[in-house]
Amino acid sequence: MRAGVLQRGLDGAAVTGALALCLGCLHVIALKSQLLTGLGGSSDSAEAPVSYETFYFDQKIDHFGFLEDGTFKQRYLVAHKHWQQPGGPVLFYTGNEGDITWFCNNTGFMWETAEELGAMLVFAEHRYYGESLPFGQDSYSDSKHLNYLTSEQALADFAVLIQNLKSTLPGAQHSPVIAVGGSYGGMLAAWFRMKYPNIVIGALAASAPIWQFTGIVPCGDFYKIVTQDYARSGYNCDANIRKSWKAINNVSSTVSGLQWLSQEFSLCIPLKNKSDAVGFKNWLQETWVNLAMVDYPYEANFLQPLPRWPITTKALVVCKHLAYDPGVSDYQLLHGVSQAAKVYYNFTGTSSCLNTSQTATGSLGLLGWFYQACTEMVMPMCTDGVQDMFEPEEWNFKAFADECSAMFGVRPRADWAGAVYGGKDIASHSNIIFSNGGLDPWSSGGVTSNITDSLVSIVIPDGAHHLDLRYRNDYDPPSVRAARALEVMYFRKWIKQAKRPPQT
Amino acid sequence: MRAGVLQRGLDGAAVTGALALCLGCLHVIALKSQLLTGLGGSSDSAEAPVSYETFYFDQKIDHFGFLEDGTFKQRYLVAHKHWQQPGGPVLFYTGNEGDITWFCNNTGFMWETAEELGAMLVFAEHRYYGESLPFGQDSYSDSKHLNYLTSEQALADFAVLIQNLKSTLPGAQHSPVIAVGGSYGGMLAAWFRMKYPNIVIGALAASAPIWQFTGIVPCGDFYKIVTQDYARSGYNCDANIRKSWKAINNVSSTVSGLQWLSQEFSLCIPLKNKSDAVGFKNWLQETWVNLAMVDYPYEANFLQPLPRWPITTKALVVCKHLAYDPGVSDYQLLHGVSQAAKVYYNFTGTSSCLNTSQTATGSLGLLGWFYQACTEMVMPMCTDGVQDMFEPEEWNFKAFADECSAMFGVRPRADWAGAVYGGKDIASHSNIIFSNGGLDPWSSGGVTSNITDSLVSIVIPDGAHHLDLRYRNDYDPPSVRAARALEVMYFRKWIKQAKRPPQT
Repeated sequence: MRAGVLQRGLDGAAVTGALALCLGCLHVIALKSQLLTGLGGSSDSAEAPVSYETFYFDQKIDHFGFLEDGTFKQRYLVAHKHWQQPGGPVLFYTGNEGDITWFCNNTGFMWETAEELGAMLVFAEHRYYGESLPFGQDSYSDSKHLNYLTSEQALADFAVLIQNLKSTLPGAQHSPVIAVGGSYGGMLAAWFRMKYPNIVIGALAASAPIWQFTGIVPCGDFYKIVTQDYARSGYNCDANIRKSWKAINNVSSTVSGLQWLSQEFSLCIPLKNKSDAVGFKNWLQETWVNLAMVDYPYEANFLQPLPRWPITTKALVVCKHLAYDPGVSDYQLLHGVSQAAKVYYNFTGTSSCLNTSQTATGSLGLLGWFYQACTEMVMPMCTDGVQDMFEPEEWNFKAFADECSAMFGVRPRADWAGAVYGGKDIASHSNIIFSNGGLDPWSSGGVTSNITDSLVSIVIPDGAHHLDLRYRNDYDPPSVRAARALEVMYFRKWIKQAKRPPQT
Repeated sequence: MRAGVLQRGLDGAAVTGALALCLGCLHVIALKSQLLTGLGGSSDSAEAPVSYETFYFDQKIDHFGFLEDGTFKQRYLVAHKHWQQPGGPVLFYTGNEGDITWFCNNTGFMWETAEELGAMLVFAEHRYYGESLPFGQDSYSDSKHLNYLTSEQALADFAVLIQNLKSTLPGAQHSPVIAVGGSYGGMLAAWFRMKYPNIVIGALAASAPIWQFTGIVPCGDFYKIVTQDYARSGYNCDANIRKSWKAINNVSSTVSGLQWLSQEFSLCIPLKNKSDAVGFKNWLQETWVNLAMVDYPYEANFLQPLPRWPITTKALVVCKHLAYDPGVSDYQLLHGVSQAAKVYYNFTGTSSCLNTSQTATGSLGLLGWFYQACTEMVMPMCTDGVQDMFEPEEWNFKAFADECSAMFGVRPRADWAGAVYGGKDIASHSNIIFSNGGLDPWSSGGVTSNITDSLVSIVIPDGAHHLDLRYRNDYDPPSVRAARALEVMYFRKWIKQAKRPPQT
């Protein structure tokens, strides 16, 4: 099951090769939940116009071997309007799996903080995403070309880029650099500080599930949080979603039922036979997850345009359609499900039909992320249908690995991320803020309590996926305002520490 | 100039491929001083019989890419006679550029400390050395096969091996692990703690020149220390060595002079023409360097069998042959030089002739080290003939890179080691002891003052290259006894810290 979500399109010239590689394989693979949910990007569409310059840096394709000595153009964006040179700080966005302009235009917190700190902003694109393609259009053509798509290579890119900026940019030589990132970009920010403390004085890792790896957190936690979000959001909301899977099975068992489902959900491509229901359920499951990730306190357009608080009790936008009592008929229940899903897919009222091959913005490079999940970013996920509202599915590494092998010709290494990035044994590091939203399913793998005085956790109870990285908004709950203030306070502290004369 | 030393042989089946690759190229390359001096191994031949078991671990050939998914057998040695299980500590030798049994048999400090701490000893062989050859006999066949010979891969090997031992060896799960290494092995020990603090609680980096990289320390420091060693060792000792290069040039300008030199130095292969003098001078220069590295307080057999204190005033063994007044003739001076060199090459009196193609033990894998120096371990060295006693030679990265390219088909990256291992910006790390001998030329690139409370320096004024890692000896100066005691004290402190309940 769950193949459907892999049908999500990838837009832009950057991923033409990816599309070519993958479109043919989408219907035969069944990658597990971690591929389905993906890791979101950074933030919203810009609420204020931003101004930056675009540069390209000749980056080594392989930092960890010397046979491949070629370079590629890594894109990075610079905004120095508020920079107090010489020596003013640099906020460096450790780009994640998508087009860097999307992160740049939408990480409002950095833009607002730049003025406050007299900081320069740099947004570095992650290799294999956006325009930063090591082998151009061939980058995704096969496992040979994909071989340099790893987090370690990305971190090395960031390190070399910063060293180069410091040695070539007048006034930057002694500038303290702080890494900032959200989601996978937040993981990179944290790891960047861990592995290259000589390059960055600290990191803000927003909604970074650095512990969502094998043997570190229970595989069911992610979907439990999703379920809790719905359970808190309205009468029987989670219970009715839990019931909906069987209802779909029942209804989709007949041709007329499939027709009814297709019409009820206004599907662009109607369900034709019973097996189509698998993809349909995957698409719905991902819809519920995405809604939980982007449950923001104001109208926003992160993965999709959405109303404020789409799934909290404060607005009841989604769950008001799912407040049935026990005994509701399958058709009635699924009518509610369709109304709820349309909150996500058609809030603007402009969608003529729902496309089950896409659940979110096209600015994310999904195929690249699938490859990363199939190699080192192995994040076990599972459901039991009891503590969560989804159909039970165990985490099966063997099956996952086989699917990765079929898709990319590579096999995932379940234990590598824990070994190389420390798992829970990270107390010897310093100057990292781990911020997490209480509503965000990804907080399942996040650091949600202080580890030491300088490895600190900030929990934003009313926050969804890295709310703190977004622009300020009048509807912001006090918790996210306080989080941002605390984050800036730590930035100031680290900058002050860095300005002390070196101890050697 | 200075090509001669590259003629040093490599022994053992492990490097047959290397020999095949390199013997033909030795006379056409002229790699610079860093290649010539190399980094020594760990210690002396065993003074006490040691007992260990040999194991082989299936290690990934490439930790940083997923295209090459093959494994190789990494050799490691285990001694658990004194291990207090469960939970007793592990002293883990981070193998450097040579056969691990040589390090194992000769790192007496670890054997003596095992009993004291109830520790298990593990000696892990560095990939591409000894028996740990990723592609067997083909490992050195070309740059494609050599591509996985990097320090990062070696550190990852150590991390994965330790994780495996902890999960499979009864009683080891909660054992704190301390990394120990000397020379390049000491650099690895320090870097291992920096990059994998989740795996090792601390490191003893003995005589580890972690700062001997581009732009960090002056390129002339190494040879200045060599020169100081000789300047302190006897009347006019350094001055006469400084004069000897011109004397060799003069004498080697005639056929009869070449014959005289060959006879005087008992060369196995006589010098035939003037250009042979270049290799001859290189060989002598390396001889003086090696003597400075192994100026131990007792008879020892590290690089060669040697008398006690070969070059200090305490014994005057070498410098008594070089105590001429100004005005000495070229032939008389070179007679003294030959007598001095024979201290190094024929202390036992068993050498029938001197072989200018070898200056040290065959247990080191020199070709592998040359490759590493030609890729990431770029250690600039230079001489000026004024502050040092050698012929002036600038550091010329371009020429060096060209030679590497000709030899291995790869180009060195001058700035990478500083970027990836932090250069001087390492204060945020913890629990590393940097020990250095005051007599050791490699202390030029070492950490010789405390950086923080837990990044500490121990200087052993009377110590040569990692004297502290050797077995105790009645002739040990008090400084090395104190150093070892302090090192064990830090080990105890780290072990105690590790036994505290985790803070999360």
